[in-house]
Amino acid sequence: MKKVGIVMGSDSDLPIIQKAVKVLKDLQIPYEVHVYSAHRTPEEAKAFSAGAESSGFGVIIAAAGMAAHLAGAVAANTTLPVIGIPCKSSNLEGLDALLSTVQMPSGIPVATVAIDGGANAAFLAAQILALSDAELSERLKSRRKADAQAVLTKDAGIMERL
Amino acid sequence: MKKVGIVMGSDSDLPIIQKAVKVLKDLQIPYEVHVYSAHRTPEEAKAFSAGAESSGFGVIIAAAGMAAHLAGAVAANTTLPVIGIPCKSSNLEGLDALLSTVQMPSGIPVATVAIDGGANAAFLAAQILALSDAELSERLKSRRKADAQAVLTKDAGIMERL
Amino acid sequence: MKKVGIVMGSDSDLPIIQKAVKVLKDLQIPYEVHVYSAHRTPEEAKAFSAGAESSGFGVIIAAAGMAAHLAGAVAANTTLPVIGIPCKSSNLEGLDALLSTVQMPSGIPVATVAIDGGANAAFLAAQILALSDAELSERLKSRRKADAQAVLTKDAGIMERL
Amino acid sequence: MKKVGIVMGSDSDLPIIQKAVKVLKDLQIPYEVHVYSAHRTPEEAKAFSAGAESSGFGVIIAAAGMAAHLAGAVAANTTLPVIGIPCKSSNLEGLDALLSTVQMPSGIPVATVAIDGGANAAFLAAQILALSDAELSERLKSRRKADAQAVLTKDAGIMERL
Amino acid sequence: MKKVGIVMGSDSDLPIIQKAVKVLKDLQIPYEVHVYSAHRTPEEAKAFSAGAESSGFGVIIAAAGMAAHLAGAVAANTTLPVIGIPCKSSNLEGLDALLSTVQMPSGIPVATVAIDGGANAAFLAAQILALSDAELSERLKSRRKADAQAVLTKDAGIMERL
Amino acid sequence: MKKVGIVMGSDSDLPIIQKAVKVLKDLQIPYEVHVYSAHRTPEEAKAFSAGAESSGFGVIIAAAGMAAHLAGAVAANTTLPVIGIPCKSSNLEGLDALLSTVQMPSGIPVATVAIDGGANAAFLAAQILALSDAELSERLKSRRKADAQAVLTKDAGIMERL
Amino acid sequence: MKKVGIVMGSDSDLPIIQKAVKVLKDLQIPYEVHVYSAHRTPEEAKAFSAGAESSGFGVIIAAAGMAAHLAGAVAANTTLPVIGIPCKSSNLEGLDALLSTVQMPSGIPVATVAIDGGANAAFLAAQILALSDAELSERLKSRRKADAQAVLTKDAGIMERL
Amino acid sequence: MKKVGIVMGSDSDLPIIQKAVKVLKDLQIPYEVHVYSAHRTPEEAKAFSAGAESSGFGVIIAAAGMAAHLAGAVAANTTLPVIGIPCKSSNLEGLDALLSTVQMPSGIPVATVAIDGGANAAFLAAQILALSDAELSERLKSRRKADAQAVLTKDAGIMERL
Repeated sequence: MKKVGIVMGSDSDLPIIQKAVKVLKDLQIPYEVHVYSAHRTPEEAKAFSAGAESSGFGVIIAAAGMAAHLAGAVAANTTLPVIGIPCKSSNLEGLDALLSTVQMPSGIPVATVAIDGGANAAFLAAQILALSDAELSERLKSRRKADAQAVLTKDAGIMERL
Repeated sequence: MKKVGIVMGSDSDLPIIQKAVKVLKDLQIPYEVHVYSAHRTPEEAKAFSAGAESSGFGVIIAAAGMAAHLAGAVAANTTLPVIGIPCKSSNLEGLDALLSTVQMPSGIPVATVAIDGGANAAFLAAQILALSDAELSERLKSRRKADAQAVLTKDAGIMERL
Repeated sequence: MKKVGIVMGSDSDLPIIQKAVKVLKDLQIPYEVHVYSAHRTPEEAKAFSAGAESSGFGVIIAAAGMAAHLAGAVAANTTLPVIGIPCKSSNLEGLDALLSTVQMPSGIPVATVAIDGGANAAFLAAQILALSDAELSERLKSRRKADAQAVLTKDAGIMERL
Repeated sequence: MKKVGIVMGSDSDLPIIQKAVKVLKDLQIPYEVHVYSAHRTPEEAKAFSAGAESSGFGVIIAAAGMAAHLAGAVAANTTLPVIGIPCKSSNLEGLDALLSTVQMPSGIPVATVAIDGGANAAFLAAQILALSDAELSERLKSRRKADAQAVLTKDAGIMERL
Repeated sequence: MKKVGIVMGSDSDLPIIQKAVKVLKDLQIPYEVHVYSAHRTPEEAKAFSAGAESSGFGVIIAAAGMAAHLAGAVAANTTLPVIGIPCKSSNLEGLDALLSTVQMPSGIPVATVAIDGGANAAFLAAQILALSDAELSERLKSRRKADAQAVLTKDAGIMERL
Repeated sequence: MKKVGIVMGSDSDLPIIQKAVKVLKDLQIPYEVHVYSAHRTPEEAKAFSAGAESSGFGVIIAAAGMAAHLAGAVAANTTLPVIGIPCKSSNLEGLDALLSTVQMPSGIPVATVAIDGGANAAFLAAQILALSDAELSERLKSRRKADAQAVLTKDAGIMERL
Repeated sequence: MKKVGIVMGSDSDLPIIQKAVKVLKDLQIPYEVHVYSAHRTPEEAKAFSAGAESSGFGVIIAAAGMAAHLAGAVAANTTLPVIGIPCKSSNLEGLDALLSTVQMPSGIPVATVAIDGGANAAFLAAQILALSDAELSERLKSRRKADAQAVLTKDAGIMERL
Repeated sequence: MKKVGIVMGSDSDLPIIQKAVKVLKDLQIPYEVHVYSAHRTPEEAKAFSAGAESSGFGVIIAAAGMAAHLAGAVAANTTLPVIGIPCKSSNLEGLDALLSTVQMPSGIPVATVAIDGGANAAFLAAQILALSDAELSERLKSRRKADAQAVLTKDAGIMERL
């Protein structure tokens, strides 16, 4: 199976990445995690992105805050699908990272998920890889059923918690 | 090749969808377009989404404005990757559609592109399908080169336009 | 008397629902509470909504955060009045939930109350049911008088608290 | 049948009110329209609101822009359900009117619909009145079916319009 | 000297009012404080406003949060200058109260100060009353000088605090 | 009677100032208009402000757009009441000017009116000056009555315009 | 004198760049203009930035819209001062470009000017270069005086235009 | 070497200034820090700004919150480059200070950095001064390398922290 590459702009984003990693582990998807900054280490970010396809990656997840350019910088150097996680920083409630990640110009898309949406970035990567992996597709469907069941279990007990 | 399903919530979103269709045609990707509203025709939207995988679709693009629930409603009924295009309506500059599309809860991601980003939705769909289609991957890379060359051609002539 | 149906997208919204439940109890209005997610359990959410009228419900209150589609998804499946409570989540101060709830397309309205406005959702439900229930209408008017009196009592003591 | 009272803060909101009136006419619901300003004619606005119940009104729709206090001012003087339409003015894309209408304090709810959502205010009023009017309920359900059919007709012809 | 009337919509706004009261005391301006809600006690709010001029008030300060209608409701019932303090509540960072207070329609102005700006509301009231009170004008000017001196004292010691 | 000083940061704000001037003329209040920029002519802006009280002004109205510092710069140099009009420019819907005008620090208030609120700035100035001018107070009250009557006239004819 | 390098992400930003060029010409500052996209031509953007210092540039101005990464991408590859112009595009009033440009992480600043602020980018570049160019400093000061005089001329004629 | 002047509008901004001072010390750049308020001590702020060039300053950094006029007020009185730091205060997440700082009118630019971006203000000042100081330029480049190396060190250890 192709690997998921995860890049974070700063290790302060680690808690969000850990949510992504947990989902990938649960779904038995191989991954590799890096800390590369679009601004402090542009060369390494570029080298990783440009070589990702030949290194066996199928999807790249990039997480960054503030003027969150990392996902866009990765996307500029590969035609692999790139998923962007906008991370909330101290100010502006994550709106800066959201707009910096999602408002990409024509030709270089970034598949943006919710602010701080580490788990969903991993689920989206899994859904993409599952297109050519029937077993992963089954695991995803099982997970959906389990998540639905968890809601229904809560529903069954909610009147007692009021 | 798997098809791209395109769903718009209202035919007022047609100009944005046409930008997506043009890119898909350029890249020789088969597609099918529908008008289904998450609110006015929830059954049809659900039936299309739930049956999309077995009908030969690989990716679904959903475009909607205002409280843009369409992409999320589609995503709730399939594990195929779903790409959301937030469409600007008369008020709020598209911010309502952007937040309604991107801020999805854990487990049901929507790969969100820019407001009115019809072309990028198609490019993202192509990048996803190209993971298992080497020829499409080549066409995508050629397109990237052509887009880059177009920029450089403009660069060459810019001083004369000042 | 017709019942008020309350649906929350996640049990993390319980504190807000409890404010609604308290008002309904005070006003002696029967209610039933459920946890259904528009995205994780779309079938159950739909079944509840589509059957609500024949099950004896008169109004449905739906509470959700982020890309808050629950109220809209309920409204798409019933012609009962649906009241939406946008819930603040970790980011964006509730603006995402507010816009996702209120900006509904023509034909499928959601009666939206303030962010985290659990109590007002219940008061609005009561005002609707009171249209055909003179005793409930009296209880509502008494409550208004009591609330006004509480303000005036505070007014009487405010100079001493400065 | 109880009447729907419609109040606009300024006759510049007339185009939005006309959308509401058209829906009410289609659904055969009696209505009465007034121009009362919460700020310029507070007495008349109050008198209308306080007397609405005994004058045979069942629901009141209030439309206003900017610091849109009208719906709240009406709601403060009646326990009838009050529906607020935030109207976009020259600046701020309607955000000022939306927040001024929806963010009501506990005890005095305003059922807020989308910015400039004249039609939905009328649909919501109809859904409320239909709780005790089986024929109106049927008309509403027929309208829903017709609206759904209109979407499906567009769906059937969309491929030819690309 | 004319009195300053202070009205707060809820006693949760008391900390902000206390900042106003402190300034008025410092400047020896008589005042009276009330808790009146535009929505829960509209009659009392109106009676106070309509009678304020004849009761010896010269300026009214009104503080409220969320859909902050209080200042506007007061302004609608008097031609005395009305100063509005938008108060931040749990959500939206005070933006709702700011827009609800400042975006008043033509003819009924509210002199709006900063979010939670209790002190400045009092200073503005003092500046208005000082137009016809030379001694108050002198006290205001002294206060300005003292405030400036406090800044310069901090400036003198800042290098040591680095 | 004391004069109203009006300062605009740029003559592009003239249409907004003309609305203020019309109200002042209607109410027979003397005024003087200047173009001074807080940034391009800081000395002249300061000289005007610092000398305003002794030149016979009672209130100053300042209108500016973008990073609208003019009202604050005037307020820093006088203890006369200063009214700020935030003016919408090409971008951001006037939000920049609103926040730059209203969010003043403690001690130096600016009485802020609505975005582009030229007329209300003049009405507020009139209400301030009327505190010591019984005839002006009467003219203001007459104007209020006329404005209310205009609303009621529109109300009387509204059903025919539907 | 060192040159000013100007880079725009798309030739649709040309009208904004022309405002910058006009100021540079007026102040007799040499410049060179390029069209390079951070996403479509990342290599060329990088090569230009990394070589700018040795090519005789002293300041770089970068203009881009939407997820405006260009200025940040340039700044990541040079220690020359980089000035960012956020350009308004079809949606969001320029807020996306502003936040994407200004919210840079520690270590890689972008000197951000107003949305569409082409002229000010050039003035800022001039002020930087004038630190080591006394004649340019004089030209800047003359320009300031001329701009101030233009305001005063408008002030002198304003009463006649009312 | 020319000095960097740092002005803060209030000593509550000291923690942000200390981040700037630390960078200047690291880079061996002389500096001087002041507390001057644009509104409470306009004369001192102006005197400092107008005399800065002849006092040996090369760049001025100004930090302020809310209606953050300080940087603009400084810029109006000097042709030295002025760097603005918008400081977050209790409300609005720093958006008020950002817009008040960056949206300057043509002719008087403020080089704006991120909200609370004390370090970047100092880096930008250093980049400006380095244009005529080869040793400082080398120190800046070394710092960039060290910052990049710190990222790569984190990258090397990140897999173990998951």
